[in-house]
Formats: sequence, structure tokens, C-alpha cells
Amino acid sequence: MDKVRIGILGLGNMGTGHARYLIEGRVEGAVLAAVSDVRSERLELAAQEWGTELKLYSTAEELFYSGEVDGVLICTPHYDHPQQAAAALKAGLHVLIEKPAGVYTKQVREMNEAAARSNKVFGIMYNQRTNPLYAKLRDLITSGELGEVRRTNWIITNWYRSQSYYDSGGWRATWAGEGGGVLLNQDPHQLDLWQWTTGMMPKRVRAFCSFGKHRNIEVENDVTAYVEYENGATGVFVTSTFESPGTNRFEISGERGKIVIENDKMTFWRLRVSETEFNATFKGGFGQPECWKFEIPVSDGGNHMGITQDWVNAILHGTPLLAPGEEGIRGLELSNAMLLSTWTDGWVDLPINEDLFYEKLQEKILSSDKHKDANSYETLDVKGTH
Amino acid sequence: MDKVRIGILGLGNMGTGHARYLIEGRVEGAVLAAVSDVRSERLELAAQEWGTELKLYSTAEELFYSGEVDGVLICTPHYDHPQQAAAALKAGLHVLIEKPAGVYTKQVREMNEAAARSNKVFGIMYNQRTNPLYAKLRDLITSGELGEVRRTNWIITNWYRSQSYYDSGGWRATWAGEGGGVLLNQDPHQLDLWQWTTGMMPKRVRAFCSFGKHRNIEVENDVTAYVEYENGATGVFVTSTFESPGTNRFEISGERGKIVIENDKMTFWRLRVSETEFNATFKGGFGQPECWKFEIPVSDGGNHMGITQDWVNAILHGTPLLAPGEEGIRGLELSNAMLLSTWTDGWVDLPINEDLFYEKLQEKILSSDKHKDANSYETLDVKGTH
Repeated sequence: MDKVRIGILGLGNMGTGHARYLIEGRVEGAVLAAVSDVRSERLELAAQEWGTELKLYSTAEELFYSGEVDGVLICTPHYDHPQQAAAALKAGLHVLIEKPAGVYTKQVREMNEAAARSNKVFGIMYNQRTNPLYAKLRDLITSGELGEVRRTNWIITNWYRSQSYYDSGGWRATWAGEGGGVLLNQDPHQLDLWQWTTGMMPKRVRAFCSFGKHRNIEVENDVTAYVEYENGATGVFVTSTFESPGTNRFEISGERGKIVIENDKMTFWRLRVSETEFNATFKGGFGQPECWKFEIPVSDGGNHMGITQDWVNAILHGTPLLAPGEEGIRGLELSNAMLLSTWTDGWVDLPINEDLFYEKLQEKILSSDKHKDANSYETLDVKGTH
Repeated sequence: MDKVRIGILGLGNMGTGHARYLIEGRVEGAVLAAVSDVRSERLELAAQEWGTELKLYSTAEELFYSGEVDGVLICTPHYDHPQQAAAALKAGLHVLIEKPAGVYTKQVREMNEAAARSNKVFGIMYNQRTNPLYAKLRDLITSGELGEVRRTNWIITNWYRSQSYYDSGGWRATWAGEGGGVLLNQDPHQLDLWQWTTGMMPKRVRAFCSFGKHRNIEVENDVTAYVEYENGATGVFVTSTFESPGTNRFEISGERGKIVIENDKMTFWRLRVSETEFNATFKGGFGQPECWKFEIPVSDGGNHMGITQDWVNAILHGTPLLAPGEEGIRGLELSNAMLLSTWTDGWVDLPINEDLFYEKLQEKILSSDKHKDANSYETLDVKGTH
């Protein structure tokens, strides 16, 4: 194979964005061959903008079995990702899914099982893993520069969304249409990075979600979660959509000091000797380890295209993926655990009880007065967002 | 009365510090007349350093009824504050107590009742209320500049304490000797400022304390607490004694923006119109309120002496106290609630169940293997600490 022929499912904001850079030939070894969307007006727009050579399909199945594509980029609504990914893999296609991996882990686990059986390249659009800030953080932690992690703290409240945003599509912020709120729509990158940069998943979660706070919506838009890790470390994750200006500050404290990422800058306060060693030998009462403050140089860059290129490289050259699709379940499990802890008003151990989460989610969908509109998918201009 | 004749109970670090500035005549309208300590060596040191005119007593009762003092500054171990304050008030003396107000709120409530009956001036050494940063924050919040508070978040992990510190006195970090750990010894100022600057006490608390983490002690030295306020706002308080370098960052998000105090600097991101108004009128989908960033000018200053002067002024001139003793119960109640939530592994509503807390504390004291040393009170050099 010289060129990977790519099909895009779903021409919403994300699908359209991916189509553009592929059409422009900016991903080496890839060509946009086909698109599918259930909305005929989106296909007409695609034909107008990108010409007549592009194959257009009104269903995913037609695209899968068209023989025109080697791989698909799945950019449909959240609920559809796992089922469509599994179907595409079954059809013998490579798959790259948009985040989140799905709405509930039970569904995503089935997708992962299909991927394991398929022998195809299965990726997820965790483009923030290409962000040099977070790549560097992962490097500093996994290489041992920070020592053992003792605390993580992410305040990510700069996902401001007005009522006008929520009102822009009947599916938005509904249990039936989207399956969740800030955790599922805005936070998937942070939830992934939280575990990917540290290399640690919590062993249990206690979280506190508010639903429709300061907004007329039914899903969660304000969350505080406390987590405990296997090694005794603790963590906090705070997120919301009604704070302006919000905060995006990720602090990780370890045996060898502290790293803070804020305002696109990384600062590392590094101890000359580890805290454990200092504590074991110091006899002076008050006093603490010698500490050096560094600004860690981080290059610019990182974007959606980087993940697509990485996936295409894996297809053509067998290189390992930066963001394997199977890892999408991790951030989603954190998100599901936070909702489940709120719904059950108690601790949630990981791995979560997938059946219980699914059951609770169905209850929310059934008791919703908004599921009638939830199949109305409109596309809003998202310049300046993710 | 021209001059308030002050007696100091307890010549540990704090008592000695207060004695020094009083001896130097730095508090107008006050004179140090007497000191008491159960440890004869501390009295001998006092006589050597401050001369023979100073009256020395080996018990608090002797000092109270000596006729030599008009008011007392109580700087004894935490457990003794409430009982000694009540006794001094009963003896007709004005009282200024060191923080914390006591170890459990039941005891402190009894002290407050004694104060209410006494008609004497009763203060607490919340010297951080004189810190212009926090005074300004309280001003900005209570005057409405920030609008309604929606979230509070205090990370106060810069209370580094080595094992050597904990080993410096048998009473330290024991249930019997001190009655608690970081919440009671290091955090009382922050717990007070958290409620004083915002003017809000939580209605319920869910907290997660670790005991003796990375240290050989029995009390809590690592805490994450989540709180909910009456108006729907939420808050987080994170504290520990083993992180180096720690963080001291207090963020308050409100309807009119956000204030952060960090590195002795206050930054105010202020919205041109309130978020509520923006949200009600904006129709553009994505977008958020216009925001202006200010560095709020804050003067230097604020110290222990300021509280002593304020208390002396109240005695001499009837001026209102900046830190009334009765308010000491608030920060203590937060501290007690955090421990109780951990011990019961559940929510704690405020006001807390005082009897239950007292009962649980007694269980900890009885099951401790360290209460034998808990009456050994030594004085460690605390230069550079509070």
C-alpha cells in the first residue's frame, strides 16, 4: 500500500476539520477517498467544497463495504463510536475514532475486544498526547525525574459554555443524545492525560457532580473528584463549564519535587535529594530539602493532524501508535466512575461495575424529558475550541 | 485604666515571642506584668532575660488571682486553651487565646458561653486576619466586587515537617498531647481565613485524611476535603506536611470573575458584566464575558503584634475586635468535621455532632500507643515558622 485511502464518518465539526487537512495533502501517505453522513446537506456541502472525485455515502455500512477505503476516521456522535468502530474493524478496515471512546465502558470494552480480534490498526484521536507540554511531563514522570508521584491536582474549569451553546443542538447535554456533560464532551483529553502523563490509574474514586448548575441542561457541568492510587498517592480533578475566566492548572507533587503546568508553561521545582532521603537523615527540627526551580523548555506544536499521521504511519510502516484505541477506555472509566460515585453517593472502586453504570445511565435516559430532541444533530461553528 | 497589665500563660515559642515585643513596649497601652509556666526552667529563663519586676507563677490559677494583671494571653498547649480561658474570664480577666481555640468544639462552645456571660474582651490570635492580602480579599468579596462565590479552592501543602520535627517533643502529633495533626497545628489560620474572607461556612463536608503518611506519627498529615455551601457553591481544601516544596494557592471563583492569591500576590480577573447577565443575554454559541486582569495592590504588614494591639485597644477604648475569640470555633469546626468525615467514611453536616466527635477522639487517645509521652512539652526553636 502506497497511500492509505481514508473514509470519514460524520461531517460535523471534527469530521470537517479532518477532511480539510487530508484534502490539502498534509498527511503524508494518506488520501481522503470517501465520506459518509446521514444528513444529505452535509454531503452536498462536501461535494461542493472538495469536488466530485470524493465518494459520498449516506450510511456507514455502504462506506465500509465500498472497497474505496483502507481505513476510517469515526467522527459521529459519542454513542456511535464503539459500534461503528467494531463494524469497520469487522469489515477489515483500520480505524481511528474521535474522543470519547464511547459513553459507557461496557460498550467500549466490546469495541476493544473486536479490535483485539481484528489485527487492524486501531487509534483514538487523543491529539493532546502530541502536545509537547504533556509529552514532556510524561517523560519527566516515567523516567523518574519527579520520583514517585504523591499527589495530582488538576483544576480544569476553563470550558466555559453559555446557555446559547447548549441550546444550539437538541442532542447537546442530554443523556440520550450525548450521554453526559463536561466529563464526556469537554474533558476527555484531560482525563486521558491525567492517567497517561502519570502512568497511574486510581484504585478508587469519590466524586461530586452537579447537574445543570447555572444552566438549563440535565447532565453534569460541575465536578469535583477525589481519587486514591495504589501507591498511596491522592488526586483531585475539578471541572466546570460556567466559570469565566476558568483555570487550567495541573500540579503533580512527587518525591523529588513538584511540576506545575499552567498558562502553557511548565515549571519544575526539583529537590537536590529526594524528600524521602532528606527526611530520613535530617536532624534539625525545622528545615526542608534544597530545591531548584526550573522552567522546562517545551517546543510548540501538537495537533489533530499529528495523531492522524501517526495512525497512517502505523498502517504503512507498522510503527507503534502514540494513542492506541484500546486506551480510550481509561479516561472514559474515570468519567463513568465520577458519575457513578455521585449517583450512588459513595466510593467507586476501579475497574467499575460496568453493568451498574449502564443501568443507571438508562434510568437517566428514561426519566429525561429531553430525549425527544436528542436525535437532532446540528453542527455549530467551533472556531477556537476543541 | 491607662495600661493593660498583661499576663502570659505558657512560655513556649509563641508565649516567648509575645513576651518579647511586650517587654520592648511595642504594644501601645500594654505592659507585660506576669508570666506563668509549669516548667521552672522556663520561668528562670524569663527572669534572666526580662528582669526581676516581672511576676512569675508556676500555675495559671495563681496568676489569675494575683491582682497583678488585667488580661491574659493564653499560649499553653491546645487542649488547655478553652478551660484556661473560661477560668480567666471567670476571674474577671480579659482574654486573648492562641490558635487553635481548642481541640474539639464541645469544649470551645463551653468557653464561648463563659465569654458571653463575662462581659470581658475575648480575642483569638488570628494574626493572619491582619495580613493585608486576606483583609483585601475579604473586602473584595464582602463588598460584592467578586459577585456571588461559586467555588473556593485552597491548596496549602507548604507546611513541610520532617520526622525530626515530630520527634522533637513527645506531645507532638499525638492524639493525647496535641489532639490532631496538620489541621490543628499548622492550618488553623487557613481554616479561619477560608471562612472569614468568603463570609461562608460550608453546610456539609466530605473529607479524606491520611494518618502518619510518610512519617512515623499517629495523627493526620495529609487531607483533601470537599465542601458544599448553602448557596450551591463548592470548595476544596488540600493540605499536607510531607510535600517539598509545597504550594499555597487560594482561588475563589465568583459571578464576577476569579481571584487567586499565590506567592504573596493577589490577581483579580474581573468580568465586565456578571457571568449570569452574560449568559442570559448572549446568543452566539461559543464566546464568554469580557474579562480584565488586575494585579490588586496590597500593602505590606500584618503580624501577631497587630492582634495584641487590637485586643488592647478594645480593652482600653471599646473598639470592635478584628478577631473575636468566639469565632475560633469556626475553623475548629471545619477541622473537626474533616476528621469526623474520615472516621465515619461519610458526609458530615454542619454544625457537627460534637458528642460524636468527642467520643471518636477519646477512642483515638485510648487506642494510641503514644499517650505516655504526650505530657512531655518541649520548646523547639521555631525561627521562620508560625
